[in-house]
Amino acid sequence: MTDVTIGVLGGTGPQGKGLALRWAKAGIPVIIGSRKTERAEATAQELREKAGVEHVTGKDNAGCAAEAGIVLVAVPWEGHDELLISLRTELAGKIVIDCVNPLGFDKQGPYALPVPEGSAAQQAEKLLPDSRVTAAFHHVSAVHLEDLSLSEVDTDVLVLGDDREATDLVRELADAIPGVRGVYGGRLRNAHQVEALTANLIAINRRYQVHAGIRITDLPE
Amino acid sequence: MTDVTIGVLGGTGPQGKGLALRWAKAGIPVIIGSRKTERAEATAQELREKAGVEHVTGKDNAGCAAEAGIVLVAVPWEGHDELLISLRTELAGKIVIDCVNPLGFDKQGPYALPVPEGSAAQQAEKLLPDSRVTAAFHHVSAVHLEDLSLSEVDTDVLVLGDDREATDLVRELADAIPGVRGVYGGRLRNAHQVEALTANLIAINRRYQVHAGIRITDLPE
Repeated sequence: MTDVTIGVLGGTGPQGKGLALRWAKAGIPVIIGSRKTERAEATAQELREKAGVEHVTGKDNAGCAAEAGIVLVAVPWEGHDELLISLRTELAGKIVIDCVNPLGFDKQGPYALPVPEGSAAQQAEKLLPDSRVTAAFHHVSAVHLEDLSLSEVDTDVLVLGDDREATDLVRELADAIPGVRGVYGGRLRNAHQVEALTANLIAINRRYQVHAGIRITDLPE
Repeated sequence: MTDVTIGVLGGTGPQGKGLALRWAKAGIPVIIGSRKTERAEATAQELREKAGVEHVTGKDNAGCAAEAGIVLVAVPWEGHDELLISLRTELAGKIVIDCVNPLGFDKQGPYALPVPEGSAAQQAEKLLPDSRVTAAFHHVSAVHLEDLSLSEVDTDVLVLGDDREATDLVRELADAIPGVRGVYGGRLRNAHQVEALTANLIAINRRYQVHAGIRITDLPE
């Protein structure tokens, strides 16, 4: 995987930053994307120091999307559609990984927001007709990703999509993080429940005071 | 748990029958419910022989709901609403566990059906205002449950509901099955994605030729 460059849109947020750190550490070149180039550069600097590597750079989101070979969308749900519309040209022909969880919070805790297209990933598919859209990395704890004292991150990553070659490659990106296993999780039309399950994991985190992930049982080693 | 009797509506189908078998084996009295008393009695007979116990009986669904202390709803999604409406009186005051997965299948495989109330469990809550509705046991493989050569069933059971005492009790019912662990999984309004995730597990089963379950990571032992 070290010959592909991963761009992380929203790479200054906890989820994008955590995944970028682990990929950088695994030897994969990363471009941090952010609305502001300076913020992206500051995070890139932080990750280079933390991972002890040189292959992390920072760009604005358009520059990140244009230069990277594979692009992770790790932005807040609010603004997801606008950003993707603006990057349609830069993302054409590329594998796009959407990890966005459309969630709301009220005094009863987290809940899944309705999405007209069915899911964030399906919205991406609709807005990026020339890209190869997959969905993955919804449930990985940012806290665990950022804590390099944890040599392994104990979770499977469900990878969804209708393009077999793309989902296989994204599974490899999951496997590149120690402890993590990429598992094919179904077609993109079944992405909603995977995104929404994050609400249940947050409820579990609150009840048990943990950073929960999921494992799929009965798979061959 | 051996002082409570569990009724299983739809107890002649694979999911209900498999859970009934494991509970019976764990010493918990079970009443199999079915539309036809004779079919319920035949399944009860089969389970008594398979589990080597006497405490499994068969009734029609109304008789099952009336006599049992806790009731599992394991009927097909089609007809779920009608059955619950007809049993509102019998189920009043009782803990009801809904494990129904509203799924459709086409040539692309399984997918989640839209449910006006949000989920099967929320439909049950609406139709049974006098019951204590929970949702659980959506992902347990019927094949593994029915295969007693497997001494343990390798899965967690997410238990959802707004009534803490009820979800704690249902978690104990999950724990009663060797290998299974009951985990609080959030409020009932977050049941949809847990039901729908069954479509992803079926996709996983087809891709990897397994009977997948899920485990929650990072929980204390």
